Amino acid sequence: MSATRRIAVIIGAGPGLAASIAKSLSTTHSLLLLSRSLPDSLPKLNLPTGIPKENILALSSDGSASSLKKVFEDLKKHWPDSRVDVGVYNVNQSFVMKDFLDSEESQLRAGLESGVVGGWNFAQSLLPLFLANEPDNTTGARGVLLFTGATMSLRGGAKFSSLAPGMFARRSLSQSLAREFGSKGVHVGHIIVDGIIDSERVREQMGEDKDNTRLNPDHIAQTYLALINQPRSAWTQELDLRPDNERW
Amino acid sequence: MSATRRIAVIIGAGPGLAASIAKSLSTTHSLLLLSRSLPDSLPKLNLPTGIPKENILALSSDGSASSLKKVFEDLKKHWPDSRVDVGVYNVNQSFVMKDFLDSEESQLRAGLESGVVGGWNFAQSLLPLFLANEPDNTTGARGVLLFTGATMSLRGGAKFSSLAPGMFARRSLSQSLAREFGSKGVHVGHIIVDGIIDSERVREQMGEDKDNTRLNPDHIAQTYLALINQPRSAWTQELDLRPDNERW
Amino acid sequence: MSATRRIAVIIGAGPGLAASIAKSLSTTHSLLLLSRSLPDSLPKLNLPTGIPKENILALSSDGSASSLKKVFEDLKKHWPDSRVDVGVYNVNQSFVMKDFLDSEESQLRAGLESGVVGGWNFAQSLLPLFLANEPDNTTGARGVLLFTGATMSLRGGAKFSSLAPGMFARRSLSQSLAREFGSKGVHVGHIIVDGIIDSERVREQMGEDKDNTRLNPDHIAQTYLALINQPRSAWTQELDLRPDNERW
Amino acid sequence: MSATRRIAVIIGAGPGLAASIAKSLSTTHSLLLLSRSLPDSLPKLNLPTGIPKENILALSSDGSASSLKKVFEDLKKHWPDSRVDVGVYNVNQSFVMKDFLDSEESQLRAGLESGVVGGWNFAQSLLPLFLANEPDNTTGARGVLLFTGATMSLRGGAKFSSLAPGMFARRSLSQSLAREFGSKGVHVGHIIVDGIIDSERVREQMGEDKDNTRLNPDHIAQTYLALINQPRSAWTQELDLRPDNERW
Repeated sequence: MSATRRIAVIIGAGPGLAASIAKSLSTTHSLLLLSRSLPDSLPKLNLPTGIPKENILALSSDGSASSLKKVFEDLKKHWPDSRVDVGVYNVNQSFVMKDFLDSEESQLRAGLESGVVGGWNFAQSLLPLFLANEPDNTTGARGVLLFTGATMSLRGGAKFSSLAPGMFARRSLSQSLAREFGSKGVHVGHIIVDGIIDSERVREQMGEDKDNTRLNPDHIAQTYLALINQPRSAWTQELDLRPDNERW
Repeated sequence: MSATRRIAVIIGAGPGLAASIAKSLSTTHSLLLLSRSLPDSLPKLNLPTGIPKENILALSSDGSASSLKKVFEDLKKHWPDSRVDVGVYNVNQSFVMKDFLDSEESQLRAGLESGVVGGWNFAQSLLPLFLANEPDNTTGARGVLLFTGATMSLRGGAKFSSLAPGMFARRSLSQSLAREFGSKGVHVGHIIVDGIIDSERVREQMGEDKDNTRLNPDHIAQTYLALINQPRSAWTQELDLRPDNERW
Repeated sequence: MSATRRIAVIIGAGPGLAASIAKSLSTTHSLLLLSRSLPDSLPKLNLPTGIPKENILALSSDGSASSLKKVFEDLKKHWPDSRVDVGVYNVNQSFVMKDFLDSEESQLRAGLESGVVGGWNFAQSLLPLFLANEPDNTTGARGVLLFTGATMSLRGGAKFSSLAPGMFARRSLSQSLAREFGSKGVHVGHIIVDGIIDSERVREQMGEDKDNTRLNPDHIAQTYLALINQPRSAWTQELDLRPDNERW
Repeated sequence: MSATRRIAVIIGAGPGLAASIAKSLSTTHSLLLLSRSLPDSLPKLNLPTGIPKENILALSSDGSASSLKKVFEDLKKHWPDSRVDVGVYNVNQSFVMKDFLDSEESQLRAGLESGVVGGWNFAQSLLPLFLANEPDNTTGARGVLLFTGATMSLRGGAKFSSLAPGMFARRSLSQSLAREFGSKGVHVGHIIVDGIIDSERVREQMGEDKDNTRLNPDHIAQTYLALINQPRSAWTQELDLRPDNERW
């Protein structure tokens, strides 16, 4: 890494998986962290004190085109000589399983916004920056864009009629972008997290993971990092992650 | 058919596939045809003169909850003693392949509306009617709900980043509904039409199908009818349809 | 049907699904029925007495190339002026779920023989006959070759390590043949039967289907017939069939 | 790593991908390399001189149960106090695309042997050793078993009717074993290598990879290593690998 500061952008930056990804990238990248509740919620992310504060920029974004436009303008002012080369779309749906006939159209729409519209806007903001980069010396990538998926990205289910559509749509976006931008030097991947992430919030709500059936967010982040480090001759578009004890 | 009038509802009722499905159902069902441009565009559907006019009701709907509410109220007034037991969600996207970075968010949103939001609303309107039906004597179904899919329901592609998300989402909806309502007597299917339908509009734009590489809409409709007639012990959730000459 | 006798060949011709398929084809086709235990086991198939005996030829075959060679020589002698245009590969595995480390290599091998080797040989015998046919007046097909699949054609499972490989392999064969022979006028399909078929043997072993969770073989056969009757512009390569009460 | 020697077993150990995997494992593991032509062909693998010779054991095996039995007896004598905890099934088919009707049954059978029978036997040999291990301190795994797949593991194709069945079957085996042995501490993965590996043999036959369309075997091996190092709460069962320039 030369004098140029490298930036990784994580949207949907809450205390679970996103914080672990941020941590795993912090030795090579400065971090632009985005979510609705940032920057106020930054302390909740519990990032290690070892990460220099000047390497973190936390801003609010709801994933809309206008909010992302503002965010990337702010980024340019904040770190003018930088190379943005990693993006992680990690926005979660508020997860409410419901009988179809008890569901509101607004739930479907919320799922589509977080599932795919925000990711589409995020990609619109990031890709021009990626394409302006030189290929990375080690991987050959101009940029890496990773999307977090879930079991319901692959199959619908009873009570998932308002939740799964946005996640199917997100997966399709990752495929279309991989096919369009792969030969232009951009690595686009989709990580299917199949199971419950053992975040602090989950532990508060459901207790400790006594049976070892949850995914440790640091362990998931290890694979995000492995994808980011893949050289261009062998890129992964999609993989699954699940605990050894998960039935599937 | 006994004294009770059976109704099939087709939304996205244009002159190509929908007209063929309408034709194939017209011997057993009265038809409620819906699209934005109906009833004005009804003559363009070129329905056979053999279908009695009193068996057709053509109304305008854009797939919104409010327009569908009105449509089904009108239906009830028009044919008070009826059994609605077939629904076909056949709404097409306006099909514009574009480079991602030349695309507008409005295209993605239009694709999501026609791809899945309209289908979700359509199912909200139909399912309560289906669940109130007795099982059909022959098939055991209280109702059949079929969704038209496409190749891009299964895989993203370069230049499909705004088109595929809505169709992936539609597929997920069909799966979720099948899983939730199968055991309640509702057959939900998804038909992947893999190729170009040889409709009149396509022939005008692209010429005759000299190489026999297109799907004849009457032939597609034959399979819709076969699914509608499947008995409840052997229902299809998904199938593909393509011409023998299609490369895939 | 003109003067030319049409022949459908069904291998794996036991009393469950195969008998139902035979029945459904008997009005348009003479039947060549094949299995290891035929012709002795013919009475067990319980074919309707309405099918003229001279329209049935039952022969023994184990799916080997040599046995099939003999069978098709016998066929030609028996019905010299005929058109063979339907083939159904319906050979079942003997279904024994086992822990992997308690399994014998011979079980895997038996599964591969019935799963794919027999089907490969069957296709080798049938395709030259199909290619020599004129296209059917109605469907445009020179021949239709259908393979029976199962849930384990699509996903492996604990205790399925010796059973699933042959069924995955069968599915791949159906895809390869569809892609190679579609444009030559041969329709190749794969039917995923997801659930337990309510055959006489199953009823003897497991009792009546009180909860309506099994597939009625006549209902499955109805869909085989629908595929056989699809016109060439809209052929199905794969579909699933399951009871409304099946959880999946 | 304590005093106990860790062993990785690679079968299908030729000069391309397998040699790269061997290299990447050589800092943590001693290597048992297996193929038909070993040990004679060992020099062709061009392993780095930095790997101590006493850390390599090269033996002949054709993947049969009897040859593997002998191999693992030899292993035990050669390195009595060891922990076998990695296995890689990397056996390739001799790759001959043919029209179906020009193909021999022996080609299909050869594909099934290398595709799945050898892998089944390999797993029979390895899994009892894995299950006897303590969980690894870092990953929690008792053992990791990786299978190399290909594009034709996922879809059949014209001219692939004898090649794809064995690879579909291999994939099914990896799924069944993952589902059966995951909760017992064994990580089973399937890596879909989608494209041509830029091995020395390929360069001799097809020239240099001027357009950067091939997979570098060292780059593929990097992802094998990443899977081997995944902690048990976030294991990958399947992923794809392809060059940025690959069209798919």
